Amino acid sequence: MKTPAFLVDRNIVEQNCARMRDKALASGVAFRPHVKTHKTVEIARMQHGGALGPITVSTLAEAEFFAEAGFEDITYAVPIAPEKLDRAAALARKIETLNLLLDSDSALQALEEHGGKFDVFLKVDCGYHRAGVNPDSPDSVRLAQAIAGSPSVRFNGLLTHAGHSYDAKSVEEIRRVAAQETGALTRFRSKLTMPNLIRSAGSTPTMSVVDRFEDVDEVRPGNYVFYDAFQATIGSCTRADVAVSVLATVVGSYPERGQAIIDAGALALSKDLGPNHLDPKFGYGLVCDLDLRPLPMRLVALSQEHGKLEASPPPAVGTQLRIMPNHSCLTAAMYDVYDVIDHGRLVGEWRPCRGW
Amino acid sequence: MKTPAFLVDRNIVEQNCARMRDKALASGVAFRPHVKTHKTVEIARMQHGGALGPITVSTLAEAEFFAEAGFEDITYAVPIAPEKLDRAAALARKIETLNLLLDSDSALQALEEHGGKFDVFLKVDCGYHRAGVNPDSPDSVRLAQAIAGSPSVRFNGLLTHAGHSYDAKSVEEIRRVAAQETGALTRFRSKLTMPNLIRSAGSTPTMSVVDRFEDVDEVRPGNYVFYDAFQATIGSCTRADVAVSVLATVVGSYPERGQAIIDAGALALSKDLGPNHLDPKFGYGLVCDLDLRPLPMRLVALSQEHGKLEASPPPAVGTQLRIMPNHSCLTAAMYDVYDVIDHGRLVGEWRPCRGW
Repeated sequence: MKTPAFLVDRNIVEQNCARMRDKALASGVAFRPHVKTHKTVEIARMQHGGALGPITVSTLAEAEFFAEAGFEDITYAVPIAPEKLDRAAALARKIETLNLLLDSDSALQALEEHGGKFDVFLKVDCGYHRAGVNPDSPDSVRLAQAIAGSPSVRFNGLLTHAGHSYDAKSVEEIRRVAAQETGALTRFRSKLTMPNLIRSAGSTPTMSVVDRFEDVDEVRPGNYVFYDAFQATIGSCTRADVAVSVLATVVGSYPERGQAIIDAGALALSKDLGPNHLDPKFGYGLVCDLDLRPLPMRLVALSQEHGKLEASPPPAVGTQLRIMPNHSCLTAAMYDVYDVIDHGRLVGEWRPCRGW
Repeated sequence: MKTPAFLVDRNIVEQNCARMRDKALASGVAFRPHVKTHKTVEIARMQHGGALGPITVSTLAEAEFFAEAGFEDITYAVPIAPEKLDRAAALARKIETLNLLLDSDSALQALEEHGGKFDVFLKVDCGYHRAGVNPDSPDSVRLAQAIAGSPSVRFNGLLTHAGHSYDAKSVEEIRRVAAQETGALTRFRSKLTMPNLIRSAGSTPTMSVVDRFEDVDEVRPGNYVFYDAFQATIGSCTRADVAVSVLATVVGSYPERGQAIIDAGALALSKDLGPNHLDPKFGYGLVCDLDLRPLPMRLVALSQEHGKLEASPPPAVGTQLRIMPNHSCLTAAMYDVYDVIDHGRLVGEWRPCRGW
């Protein structure tokens, strides 16, 4: 197989998909998994046990791609930009439901000025402080009431993302974030006069560590299909749950300085620093042998097409290695084609959606 | 124009291309620019004043792509992996010259075992300590003599890359690295009995700050076609020389915490940390207005499709910004299409080569 290559272990993906879906079913909550990690029709179907079901996307390009493949109920989980409304409206006319996200008066006004009728969720900040309204602010209640009263929208629910679960240093800490995530939605909804608003939550760490989804109506995890070295380090999964790796070849070996060069650099792995809040020397991915057993080697630097390993002795030129990526979403996005493996054998290719 | 978008200012690219080419011509050295930064046929031709000329590539996919477009003299400037020899040999049969790179006995042995006759350069380490042989080691002289004596290769020259120029904190420091770069090649060649070996050097910082190329036979800069916020900060260029930016839209604005969210995240910018050795708070790109004037805003965090800005007051939802990327090679590689602009107007699209 040529290198670098992005290997996806089909059996592990299937296991990860089944485990999360089963938990959602057993918990009696709606399941709307995110597809941004893999961006493929094949895995989106696996997330729903082979069927077409509700999904979450991170770009309008994904929304259009999955709509074309038959997915009819899509939430675009980034606050809508006014300049994207024409495109969103065109897609909304083609499928059953396209939920848009907003968190400001100005976005609501843009929807109203555009005309038509949009399905919307209000983004709530549960402590990550990226996007979303403060659930404890009276201004947020006023915005919710304005959305509810607008003739231009159907107000379907409240949506949050506990991205700060990625800062956690232990499973206990992830569990505390999980409680914040659902707590923020429930607390905010209790201040509103719309009791049927869906409470939608989602982050792979929080969704992975809880035994059951409680105090929430819909869940939207995404990274769990692949997991990665980061998730295994903070405790969202075990290393055996990580379904993806980058196959690389050693192209230079320098015993005198205890280093080697592989043909997987920043374009093959991404420059995500991984769990460096837990280990500042973690490096740009976990270096493993062909059976995915970790090796005593660190990937200390990446340039465009070179990855620099430290190891004593370094592996010889021609040696093949598998790198468990730090952040599978970003690594997957570097590839036009995924090489699908089953018990180590290449069994197919999957092509992700790309661009915006 | 939809966002995020990768804007390429055609006039600035032309100026950057002409300046470097003129310097090479005036210096009387061979010019073999790297095409890995842009990966487009359009800019590769601009690098040679509109013609097809010798180029340097970072992947075999690029080599095949540019060969298909008529480029007949190509150096693949990453040490060759044994598993790539069949593919390299197939391409070498189609064009005038495909130079491969090696820096080990084991790679030479792999070439000999493969059969055929390859054009090669020996990679020399001039202080970057990524790939290459130590120019001051007797082992390196022995390897060079073995290459010269091998029936399987034509030994064309010595090649180095002063990647450590990127660690420089001043133009003076870059000049010192430039002297190391050419000095290592000349010193090493003087120990060999092959006086006609081409000395090939290349890094955009070193090639940009010298007034004339001396003590070298061939130059291979690449990033200079675009430059970026990093190069402007260390002094390789001015900000006015930076030809590329990412157009983004503000999708969330949070005056109460002095923050905003744009629709350009890690997939639109890459997570390169830029000149953080000079400014640890530089952020993930230089935030500018639509006329590329820097704004008092910092891009402090990137997730997959969100960029988080700090600014007081933050820009309003719907505002468009241009982000000067930290590392244009990595940012360009995130796009399937570049939007080409001329005096701010969209005039075309260029499509880069992708993959490996």
